[in-house]
Amino acid sequence: MALPRQVRIVEVGPRDGLQNESTIVPTAAKIELIDRLSATGLQTVEATSFVSPKWVPQLADAAEVYAGIARRAEVRYPVLVPNLQGYERARAVGADEVAVFTAASETFNRRNTNAGIDESLERFAPVLERAQADGVRVRGYVSTVLGCPYQGEVPLADVVRVASALHAMGCYEISLGDTIGVGTPGKARDMLLAVAAEVPMPALAVHFHDTFGQALANVLACLGEGVAVVDAAVSGTGGCPYARGASGNLATEDLVYMLHGLGVETGVDLDALVDTGAWLAGILGRDTGSKVTRARAAG
Amino acid sequence: MALPRQVRIVEVGPRDGLQNESTIVPTAAKIELIDRLSATGLQTVEATSFVSPKWVPQLADAAEVYAGIARRAEVRYPVLVPNLQGYERARAVGADEVAVFTAASETFNRRNTNAGIDESLERFAPVLERAQADGVRVRGYVSTVLGCPYQGEVPLADVVRVASALHAMGCYEISLGDTIGVGTPGKARDMLLAVAAEVPMPALAVHFHDTFGQALANVLACLGEGVAVVDAAVSGTGGCPYARGASGNLATEDLVYMLHGLGVETGVDLDALVDTGAWLAGILGRDTGSKVTRARAAG
Repeated sequence: MALPRQVRIVEVGPRDGLQNESTIVPTAAKIELIDRLSATGLQTVEATSFVSPKWVPQLADAAEVYAGIARRAEVRYPVLVPNLQGYERARAVGADEVAVFTAASETFNRRNTNAGIDESLERFAPVLERAQADGVRVRGYVSTVLGCPYQGEVPLADVVRVASALHAMGCYEISLGDTIGVGTPGKARDMLLAVAAEVPMPALAVHFHDTFGQALANVLACLGEGVAVVDAAVSGTGGCPYARGASGNLATEDLVYMLHGLGVETGVDLDALVDTGAWLAGILGRDTGSKVTRARAAG
Repeated sequence: MALPRQVRIVEVGPRDGLQNESTIVPTAAKIELIDRLSATGLQTVEATSFVSPKWVPQLADAAEVYAGIARRAEVRYPVLVPNLQGYERARAVGADEVAVFTAASETFNRRNTNAGIDESLERFAPVLERAQADGVRVRGYVSTVLGCPYQGEVPLADVVRVASALHAMGCYEISLGDTIGVGTPGKARDMLLAVAAEVPMPALAVHFHDTFGQALANVLACLGEGVAVVDAAVSGTGGCPYARGASGNLATEDLVYMLHGLGVETGVDLDALVDTGAWLAGILGRDTGSKVTRARAAG
């Protein structure tokens, strides 16, 4: 199996991880988290989300967090924006990379954002236009690519359609997310290849949740097809909002451990990452979701 | 990636799982566990171990357990034996398949069994001889194939030498075990291929611990090379005796979930397996080590 020589990890813990944690994290700790993560060698740390605090109370302090981080020149700090208003709030505090998100499942998108997929894409059009004028890079998330908690199966054609639309609108990278973590390696690879027939592989990222323990195996299968950008969240934060108590994001520590073991470069200092994950678990008052961190603490 | 059409799972929970759990499980519950597992469609359920109770207090009731199970004709119930004396105890209660074990790491073998590898192999010679005369099948375990808690790296040549020796002595199947769970998919595959150059692939099984979260990805990499027998323990029991609090065996539930998702047949009823794993976690008074079981309980 040919693997990429290097993988860029997009650390989504401060956003996708925290937004589904019930313990409210103080603003200062969020800033410390981002600063610690950016010191580990991670190239991209998604910092926060400018969605309505009504929907994501955990990230109500987005502006304070973003303004408070000690930005490093070599690190990118994208933020999630739901629409032009969110984009403007993000820009006001200096964000120079943003992300937009929609589901591949129509039902999920309606329940999650109160809008159909096409309506979501329409809302993003002015964001993409403004971003292009501002020289701001936009990442696109497609969720529920391997299953939906409401409609079950999600046709591959729907995933391809939404990913292609975001790419055509100007997103430089499309992150394909298995939001409920139901996917297995063969399905993950088939999905990736279907999208890659329309969107160039270098513009694709994979984003697996570990709800059913499949995330790393899914990553491995997709690396074998040439994907070289992988999302993960330190300490496996996030949970699954549709299954209380279930596991959340793939833990960045476990991903880095696998990649380094495979001889794939990430630029990340695993020791520093493990320290940061253990510290975060303490802040959240929960066990770490990283087996690497648990094994090291136990060893 | 070509995958085997079917995989035989060797369920090692009642032996490898329980022997490293600190909560002593009542004999009746062990019997119920084995009977429940054998009702799920699993073809092989390793029932117990006839090592000295001094070393493994949890399995001091090996004879009572073995005598108590309701054996099914279509299920094999191997038991671990350390030497001829153990073999005779196992035979006395009707065992018709046994397993012997040695490490690939000389240091580990000395610390774990108080004997060098060659000495262990010598002890097995009369077991293999007697078993052949009795028509009893013997499985061979090789532990520490991807690392040793004492000596660190284990040369591939040592793994190949020990696996080949067990096979040459008459073991019908060699289970290659990453006892401390440090392996990653590339190393797992390289190790498997090195052994497969000397021992035919159909006579090989893989046995990964999930201490660093790598077990399923390692299985996937090895399936791609043609291995079709995989060890796992329901509920991910076992822990790692060298790292308190760390994860243990690969959870059978998570393995079955992946295999079925890949279209690989196992013959196992996942729902029945999940129920059994959840029940066992209750007996042990601990959280299940299976993410599939956790997700289902939460969903």
